[in-house]
Amino acid sequence: MSQSIVQRVVLFDQDDPLVLTSGAVLPHVEVAYTTTGTLSPQRDNAVFICHALTGDAEVGKWWSSLVGPGKPIDTDRFFVICPNLLGGCQGTTGPMSINPETGESYGLDFPLLHMSDFVSVHRALTRHLGVERLYAAVGGSLGGMQILQWAHDAPGDFDHAVLVAATSRLTAQNIAFSAVAREAIMRDPEFHDGRYAGSGPGPRLGLAIARMMAHITYVSDEALEEKFGRRLQETGEEATPSADAMGMGIAFAVESYLDHQGRAFLDRFDALSYLYLSRVMDYFDPFADQQAAAQIASAGTRFLVISFDTDWRFDTRQSQRIVRTLSDAGAAVTFREIRSPWGHDSFLLDVPQYQETVAAFLSPVRPQVDARPELELIENLIPAGSAVLDLGCGDGSLLARLAIRGGSGSGVEIDPDSFLAAVQRGIDVLGEDIAVVLPTLPDDSYDTVVVSQTLQATQRPEEVLREAGRVGRQVVVSVPNFGHWRHRRDLLIRGRMPVDQSLPYTWFETPNVHLSTLRDLEELFAQLGLRIDRRVLLDRSGRELRGTSGANVRAASAIYVLAAGD
Amino acid sequence: MSQSIVQRVVLFDQDDPLVLTSGAVLPHVEVAYTTTGTLSPQRDNAVFICHALTGDAEVGKWWSSLVGPGKPIDTDRFFVICPNLLGGCQGTTGPMSINPETGESYGLDFPLLHMSDFVSVHRALTRHLGVERLYAAVGGSLGGMQILQWAHDAPGDFDHAVLVAATSRLTAQNIAFSAVAREAIMRDPEFHDGRYAGSGPGPRLGLAIARMMAHITYVSDEALEEKFGRRLQETGEEATPSADAMGMGIAFAVESYLDHQGRAFLDRFDALSYLYLSRVMDYFDPFADQQAAAQIASAGTRFLVISFDTDWRFDTRQSQRIVRTLSDAGAAVTFREIRSPWGHDSFLLDVPQYQETVAAFLSPVRPQVDARPELELIENLIPAGSAVLDLGCGDGSLLARLAIRGGSGSGVEIDPDSFLAAVQRGIDVLGEDIAVVLPTLPDDSYDTVVVSQTLQATQRPEEVLREAGRVGRQVVVSVPNFGHWRHRRDLLIRGRMPVDQSLPYTWFETPNVHLSTLRDLEELFAQLGLRIDRRVLLDRSGRELRGTSGANVRAASAIYVLAAGD
Repeated sequence: MSQSIVQRVVLFDQDDPLVLTSGAVLPHVEVAYTTTGTLSPQRDNAVFICHALTGDAEVGKWWSSLVGPGKPIDTDRFFVICPNLLGGCQGTTGPMSINPETGESYGLDFPLLHMSDFVSVHRALTRHLGVERLYAAVGGSLGGMQILQWAHDAPGDFDHAVLVAATSRLTAQNIAFSAVAREAIMRDPEFHDGRYAGSGPGPRLGLAIARMMAHITYVSDEALEEKFGRRLQETGEEATPSADAMGMGIAFAVESYLDHQGRAFLDRFDALSYLYLSRVMDYFDPFADQQAAAQIASAGTRFLVISFDTDWRFDTRQSQRIVRTLSDAGAAVTFREIRSPWGHDSFLLDVPQYQETVAAFLSPVRPQVDARPELELIENLIPAGSAVLDLGCGDGSLLARLAIRGGSGSGVEIDPDSFLAAVQRGIDVLGEDIAVVLPTLPDDSYDTVVVSQTLQATQRPEEVLREAGRVGRQVVVSVPNFGHWRHRRDLLIRGRMPVDQSLPYTWFETPNVHLSTLRDLEELFAQLGLRIDRRVLLDRSGRELRGTSGANVRAASAIYVLAAGD
Repeated sequence: MSQSIVQRVVLFDQDDPLVLTSGAVLPHVEVAYTTTGTLSPQRDNAVFICHALTGDAEVGKWWSSLVGPGKPIDTDRFFVICPNLLGGCQGTTGPMSINPETGESYGLDFPLLHMSDFVSVHRALTRHLGVERLYAAVGGSLGGMQILQWAHDAPGDFDHAVLVAATSRLTAQNIAFSAVAREAIMRDPEFHDGRYAGSGPGPRLGLAIARMMAHITYVSDEALEEKFGRRLQETGEEATPSADAMGMGIAFAVESYLDHQGRAFLDRFDALSYLYLSRVMDYFDPFADQQAAAQIASAGTRFLVISFDTDWRFDTRQSQRIVRTLSDAGAAVTFREIRSPWGHDSFLLDVPQYQETVAAFLSPVRPQVDARPELELIENLIPAGSAVLDLGCGDGSLLARLAIRGGSGSGVEIDPDSFLAAVQRGIDVLGEDIAVVLPTLPDDSYDTVVVSQTLQATQRPEEVLREAGRVGRQVVVSVPNFGHWRHRRDLLIRGRMPVDQSLPYTWFETPNVHLSTLRDLEELFAQLGLRIDRRVLLDRSGRELRGTSGANVRAASAIYVLAAGD
């Protein structure tokens, strides 16, 4: 493994200046960066990492959960590139740099930046390092936003994109927090209109207030409660202090912690960089361009989007917006909300499900597919080359089988282990409830929608079928039959709810909350205007039954091929 | 209706000073207050209203959603008292008042306050107005916290308590936000250690920053998004501005709104009051005293606790903590999380379900009880005078019947209409999922737990039964019987899932997601160690069937009286 010492390179100069999106020109752009690992002779193992608001080029320092030898972004395998950001204050040109025209710091004369300006500099660095195409581009928070912009500005630049805890546009609340932070900085009497370089301490009070407030938004309520609760700084105990000990100063441990966060930040970050970089985020809105998603999708990049359930800075809905927009445009997207107690900061922390998911996505293995006879029957009912959506796709075996036959498709699977197995297989899969995903999909967006051994476990089977018929031109449904003679016998003779291979749970534990007979189900198909094109009856071991008579008594389960009427 | 002009009264003076919880003494306390409506000759219609952090005595101005003629706190019926808070800056003695010892404003020499100090002043005002016992005390946010403290300090002072969007203790996140706000104020160079009265503008920048930040926490993410989204202030449109129009100043409408909130606040509020009142909240933690809840419960006050689903300042879990602690101590508590898009501010807004709930609680009518024969059967199975918990209590008919026979009890009901009907009837009811409530209840906390026509609709019937057996000494369960001959016939002969009076839904729409036969159910009782003391079989119209033979075939439903074994 090569060293990851911060290096510097001048990527733009008087002869070849950086022209910004705004039209402004930067005649000298120097970039601080690190590389870790070794570029392969084929130059096909480069992973580019974009840092978040206050990160820097030393990726191993702040992202040890993902980057390193044997880590998900394995530096024994990948050549990892990480620069400090344009406008930053940790080695790359920014507002505190010397303006060649005046010989003084730019201050507020530094031009406003756009997310695309970051991309321009990243691309120049990549070229400088001799990399034509990246295996992957990875970023969390503002880092993820850069990658989304990059996928738009230069769609062919990478095969894999990983966006963690990111957003495609700030919410009003996000902007509001940033606005208050900037106000605290700019109203500080020491701000001096941004001309504080070399004259006085700078807006230290404002910057500390900004950081303290922002820090609250990076951590979940639960994490603060767990870490500090109402413990007092002095005693470490949760007790009401004596009247003498009360006061307006620091009393609670959480106050001391924030105070420390504010002070420590002053040593490593600059107020003007804070203003400039946060403002880029406010204005970021790539999907405002209606063509953006289609441009991104055109390159065939596979996207992994990850959110954290307790992140309220950029919450799951913000990741879902990216997922929906890219998916609708035909991009290959895998998505999962990871459970983590730590809030937005989770993207930098050791969260096993997160690390496993990134590892599986970047380094898929292709395990053997499931050989259940039912899957083979379903496979044979779907025309080769179809675009398939598999609702409740399990470990992705069906989609893997179909892919071998030239089909394309994606899955929806909420069970974490099955989701991970499907990602490991290289399947695009949304780790969500199918009732959440279905209504977001456009009409007729798939040739075939598969609902295999899933319908009876959904809260609203009618809605699932209706939506499946809207989204797919064809719907393939497989279900257990509550009308099977063994179940009738159980109820009639034994007076018991049936339990057997096709319905393996006791009544009070079963996930199969909406059971039906085939007759019931066929009536619902008719109500929903779903025409039965084919029906395959199965025995208890999932093999096809001959003949069609007495279906509702003989079949343990059935597969239907339905056509959605118009 | 009498006028609600702000009046002032000196409640404590040199001869009778206010001794604070800390031991400090205030030799002169003046209080600004309003009264609205007329005190009845019996003096039994007084409602005391406590305001939140920045409210004042003019309750009609800030709480028009609840207070006024024909409103839930009906000033045609009630005599409404509302003072400005001790430590405030709107007429009542606070840190900007003149310290009689020095002839100057107190500043930071004003003593630190405790929630009990507010209560002392409120009680003095109540006495001054000739009211011995209040019909109700009502407050939102900090107002609710005052009422909780009051219920503790003087348990007999009111019959009804309404706590809206309140908490019994701030979380670490709550404290963190307050701490940053105070830092912004105290670090402002114009703060001058609190001696800014009469010398300079005061910490206007810090106070504005504090208010802007706090304001974000009062509003839900959704509300900000709905109201402002990413619209630009200049055009009112959601469009990316031209490069020229971008800058560090106000660009988005939400920025302008916050800026306005910050500025407007400077005209009506004082920075020192902000420090003092917010600090009282930080230290508030009445249940740290293990006896507190029992003291509160001893007075027989009925509590209504309300939270809002989008309130993230004091979220539903904070209200639930109050509810659990008071309930466990035996207090009569009604609770509901109200759906409202507006976040914490909802407590001041027109939210119909909220207004209806407060109105029903303060002015119950007692409609006729449901005459279903099954209820009469259940009633007769429960010993008179029992303490009963009715899970899925519907409109409270069973509890109302039992109350007539001297029983006490409370219900759990998540359906909003049924919840409201039960509150209207004067029943104590938790508007929550029974799976959420049950695990929070202490062992053997009720004589009888009733699970009537509810079990089959729960997600985990086994857990519900297990918990019911833990919480009650006796459990009464009524369920439909899937083994009834008509259902067997439907499945056997017709091959259909049954639909009739006892199971009135089609298979795909039914809330009855865990059906069982009586035989299945009795096996589960045995597994859980629940002994069947009595079984009553019912026909399809809910009347008792004679005889016990062929129960699993003949009964459309059944009622079981179970004893929890130990």
